Amino acid sequence: MSHPARESIYQAIASIRLIDPHTHINPHAPASRTLADLLGYHYYTELAHSSGMPKREIEEPGISPHELVRRLVHNLAPLENTSQYRWLVEICKKFFGFQADRIDTSNWESLYDAAERSMASAQWSQSVLDQSNVEAVFLTNDFDDDLSGFDTNTYIPCLRTDDLVFKLHQRDVQERLQRSSGVSLNGSLGSLRDAIRQLFLHFTANGARACAISLPPWFEPTMVNEGRASNALNAVLRHGEAVESSHVTALSRAVFWMLAELCDEFGLPFDLMIGVNRGVYAEGVFQGQDLYDSRVSLIQYRELFNAFPDVKFPVSVLASVTNQELVSYAWIFPNVITNGHWWYSNTPSFIHRDAAVRLEAVPQTKQIAYYSDAYKLEFVWPKFDMYRNILANILAEHFVGFNGWSEEQAIELGYKVLRGNVEAIFPSRT
Amino acid sequence: MSHPARESIYQAIASIRLIDPHTHINPHAPASRTLADLLGYHYYTELAHSSGMPKREIEEPGISPHELVRRLVHNLAPLENTSQYRWLVEICKKFFGFQADRIDTSNWESLYDAAERSMASAQWSQSVLDQSNVEAVFLTNDFDDDLSGFDTNTYIPCLRTDDLVFKLHQRDVQERLQRSSGVSLNGSLGSLRDAIRQLFLHFTANGARACAISLPPWFEPTMVNEGRASNALNAVLRHGEAVESSHVTALSRAVFWMLAELCDEFGLPFDLMIGVNRGVYAEGVFQGQDLYDSRVSLIQYRELFNAFPDVKFPVSVLASVTNQELVSYAWIFPNVITNGHWWYSNTPSFIHRDAAVRLEAVPQTKQIAYYSDAYKLEFVWPKFDMYRNILANILAEHFVGFNGWSEEQAIELGYKVLRGNVEAIFPSRT
Amino acid sequence: MSHPARESIYQAIASIRLIDPHTHINPHAPASRTLADLLGYHYYTELAHSSGMPKREIEEPGISPHELVRRLVHNLAPLENTSQYRWLVEICKKFFGFQADRIDTSNWESLYDAAERSMASAQWSQSVLDQSNVEAVFLTNDFDDDLSGFDTNTYIPCLRTDDLVFKLHQRDVQERLQRSSGVSLNGSLGSLRDAIRQLFLHFTANGARACAISLPPWFEPTMVNEGRASNALNAVLRHGEAVESSHVTALSRAVFWMLAELCDEFGLPFDLMIGVNRGVYAEGVFQGQDLYDSRVSLIQYRELFNAFPDVKFPVSVLASVTNQELVSYAWIFPNVITNGHWWYSNTPSFIHRDAAVRLEAVPQTKQIAYYSDAYKLEFVWPKFDMYRNILANILAEHFVGFNGWSEEQAIELGYKVLRGNVEAIFPSRT
Ligand SMILES: [Zn+2]
Ligand SMILES: [Zn+2]
Ligand SMILES: [Zn+2]
Repeated sequence: MSHPARESIYQAIASIRLIDPHTHINPHAPASRTLADLLGYHYYTELAHSSGMPKREIEEPGISPHELVRRLVHNLAPLENTSQYRWLVEICKKFFGFQADRIDTSNWESLYDAAERSMASAQWSQSVLDQSNVEAVFLTNDFDDDLSGFDTNTYIPCLRTDDLVFKLHQRDVQERLQRSSGVSLNGSLGSLRDAIRQLFLHFTANGARACAISLPPWFEPTMVNEGRASNALNAVLRHGEAVESSHVTALSRAVFWMLAELCDEFGLPFDLMIGVNRGVYAEGVFQGQDLYDSRVSLIQYRELFNAFPDVKFPVSVLASVTNQELVSYAWIFPNVITNGHWWYSNTPSFIHRDAAVRLEAVPQTKQIAYYSDAYKLEFVWPKFDMYRNILANILAEHFVGFNGWSEEQAIELGYKVLRGNVEAIFPSRT
Repeated sequence: MSHPARESIYQAIASIRLIDPHTHINPHAPASRTLADLLGYHYYTELAHSSGMPKREIEEPGISPHELVRRLVHNLAPLENTSQYRWLVEICKKFFGFQADRIDTSNWESLYDAAERSMASAQWSQSVLDQSNVEAVFLTNDFDDDLSGFDTNTYIPCLRTDDLVFKLHQRDVQERLQRSSGVSLNGSLGSLRDAIRQLFLHFTANGARACAISLPPWFEPTMVNEGRASNALNAVLRHGEAVESSHVTALSRAVFWMLAELCDEFGLPFDLMIGVNRGVYAEGVFQGQDLYDSRVSLIQYRELFNAFPDVKFPVSVLASVTNQELVSYAWIFPNVITNGHWWYSNTPSFIHRDAAVRLEAVPQTKQIAYYSDAYKLEFVWPKFDMYRNILANILAEHFVGFNGWSEEQAIELGYKVLRGNVEAIFPSRT
Repeated sequence: MSHPARESIYQAIASIRLIDPHTHINPHAPASRTLADLLGYHYYTELAHSSGMPKREIEEPGISPHELVRRLVHNLAPLENTSQYRWLVEICKKFFGFQADRIDTSNWESLYDAAERSMASAQWSQSVLDQSNVEAVFLTNDFDDDLSGFDTNTYIPCLRTDDLVFKLHQRDVQERLQRSSGVSLNGSLGSLRDAIRQLFLHFTANGARACAISLPPWFEPTMVNEGRASNALNAVLRHGEAVESSHVTALSRAVFWMLAELCDEFGLPFDLMIGVNRGVYAEGVFQGQDLYDSRVSLIQYRELFNAFPDVKFPVSVLASVTNQELVSYAWIFPNVITNGHWWYSNTPSFIHRDAAVRLEAVPQTKQIAYYSDAYKLEFVWPKFDMYRNILANILAEHFVGFNGWSEEQAIELGYKVLRGNVEAIFPSRT
């Protein structure tokens, strides 16, 4: 049974107005328009597919949102035990007055209609933010995003750099970089640096508060000397995707290092999301193809962390087994910060054990508790609320119960990791 | 303290009649004849040896069951804290009216006699099954087992394939294969495939419901092309155990791939038990020599899982650190199923943490909760009961407590993973 | 909430007089002289530095203890959530009558003075031992320590061998070995063996009860043949630190193997502390530079454990992910013993989960519960008390609650792992 302090701690931390430090929200369409935007989230499509629903039923071109929801609802029963399913039911209860505990063939149509009515409101996005007690969310912007047409105080730009580091041998990425930067890649490293630097100027001028990247488990960032990097760039510009893989690897490292240098120059934290292998299940549904090899170590980042003492690295790890290394590296390196509970580790048991370890060993100023990773605003609330429930348990049991803290002290710690550190680590420039 | 719903959930799931999906029961002698069959289980001999009992005292040729028990009882004290010891005491209490909490020099002889009396009954095996609420158990049959002389509805055949994959360079294995299949290995891959296919015909005709194998951590199944596989087969047939190891490896992979193809053709699930290194402690007691390297990843099975979308792969992992990968792969791949808590992970803490993670993230239809791995029927009950106690805790605390489920919902989930999925994933053909 | 048996179990195990089987206490100055000796412990300096305090403020040459404490106190706030901070506050409460829950700018000076007054007593060390209910502590002695001038019954010598194994290519280490052993290294392996054997004679004559070493994750002990070892020794003697690294590696393995042989001859347990990479953060504070790669396996020690069945190997692992392997190897190998909760795994969550697994699967005679690793006597108590609180929880919840044991049985188990096994595994010769 839960500790007597648990409930009041939960209430206190649930009243904290949030800034969500990592999402995939589209600022031009931040909330859902139909239930299909919720049920189409990859968690539901991949779990339904994993339970036996053919991919073609999910991804059939041209099907209506109503039909997609109908099909998925017929395949939800195997998922009812998952925490992802719980997010969905909680959204429906909170935002659409849904009363049941299961979404099934008997009730989905009225739910669909109720949701559609709510979502039709011009104020729907703002209403979701307000009901969720959320002040702002960080975005995940392509490097060539023009960042216009939305309020960057609510929808905070973040420069996502996967394409620059891992796909610069692709012609379209080279062209996107030249077009967005206005710099033509003439084969010199200087031109590449100039081009990327333009992106930093553009992003920081538009309120960006972070640079971010996701990284495969085999990646090892090291400094590449100018000659080697220059050769790699030239080979890649000449041969495109036909280039030898050693050049791709060398260029990946060189670009990654440039990004770290520019984060240093521009004072941008560099979010590292470590551990994903893309496309492991090639026949999987959209966004449901990636897995990992948990045999990754932060020792691979040793040179990086030493070389850039003034860059803050909020680090997310995909597998819980890497959490202890993350804790230890954050405990020793001033520039390593623990960041959220990512993807396959974003389920209650893993959150509980990973968060507890962080809270008892990493300085309280160096922990970013959580981010939603949401694609639609409606998901920010149930995900954060799952986290808050677990955090309240840890604060009550470990800090009040085991350590003898007062409730006030425990709530202070909760505030710091949930909100205070987000502001301190990713300061606004405005 | 435990959740108030815990006890009624436990009672409900304890009343479920079980099918045990993996054991090493000998269908011709399924239950024990003396206490030596219980105390001779490798868990007790290896733990007693690890605590200081010389191997020669345990494995002295020709000692009587009574003498073996006497010797082991004198060496049980160091084991009293282990969960394995608890299984033993619970068996003695349940089946033989034992009243004490320790088996020691003061009470073992009367226990021995009481056990012998019970075991002498002609109905003893059936009585153990009935008292244990067990309907049937899966076996582990050598590929050349004739599968006759027992009721295959109660003792369900399972084709174990370790010898075929890892020992086909041994003459005796080649001969056993030729003899049991009636096919002579003439050096062509076709003859090898025919021979193995005969085994599948024989096993499925006799009610087999699974194919199974245990795999070392370094094994990486990949398709081997016909030419390479053919060379390997010829080399192995010519040189036997003197063959170069590269041929052994190539042939292992080729045979493994054939087995997956045949599982596909015959609709048999392929149980993968991943992670064991055999003979690490060469001077250990019988069956107490195997350990592991926990640095294994399911990414090694990427090609296999993609190549056989219609084969169900119930996967067991030896080390708890691999459990998160198992959960993630089962969450994404339709053909990956979580299977039990194996060997070094079959202790309460690991079961608790591994089962909790599965229950909150893997579709409920894709989880096989538990198998006993027992060599004698008496062990099915205490092992399953250890699991059920933990499952009841998770269902009460996480699903009823944290998620707000009803007890009925929680019990339904328990039924599905304990019994329903075994029938759905390993369907009977009769 | 905690189990009703928890409190009485805690009280019983808190009354056990301890022998601490691994510390870095200086027997000539075992306790602190000022608060700076406590706050100067690397846990506080590294965490304060990690939270932003510049290294130069901490390590400025010539600053007074008072000034160092003043500076550190101004940087403690970010650490208040850590278990390390709790040790500090508990020391101040227990030994110096400190009443607050935080050490801050308002109260540190009076605390400093109170501590200084207590520490000025000639009986301070003995008083700390008595108040902490500690009978004796193991030391960590350099191989050339003369071991004189202290009571070896209270301060038990332990031969630390890192320098011999990993630094014998350094001239100063060669000279220290020749000087302390009285044997000159003439290039023959025999001279090296003679020299090291002299150290064993010296240490065992002075009451040493263990040999110990910390090992990097990549180290794999294997026997090196005489010719290869002899070449390596000669190369190292000729070239010193300029020698090729292959010779250093070969000599490391050869010396390690000699140490195991001598442990066998002299009946000394060989403590292995596996997993640390030294100097990962080169700009870190003193003793705050080491981290690790958690991808290590005990399979690397397979040859060693098989070759020396009569040497006891108490094994500590740096990362919790290795704990399951440690448990499994201790369950199978008679000569492998689980030892404490080391460094980055010495925080409450990791202790809880690692200790629970050991207690339910490793014979109770093969577990050394805990050591403090302390540099000053004052830290023995809060560290052991953290452990005892966790142990009491496990004994109450798992053994009394889940297993149905009596409190007496649970307390017996606690006694064995906390005290009994230390005496049985590291017997005194006097
Ligand atoms: Zn994301
Ligand atoms: Zn088995
Ligand atoms: Zn130490």
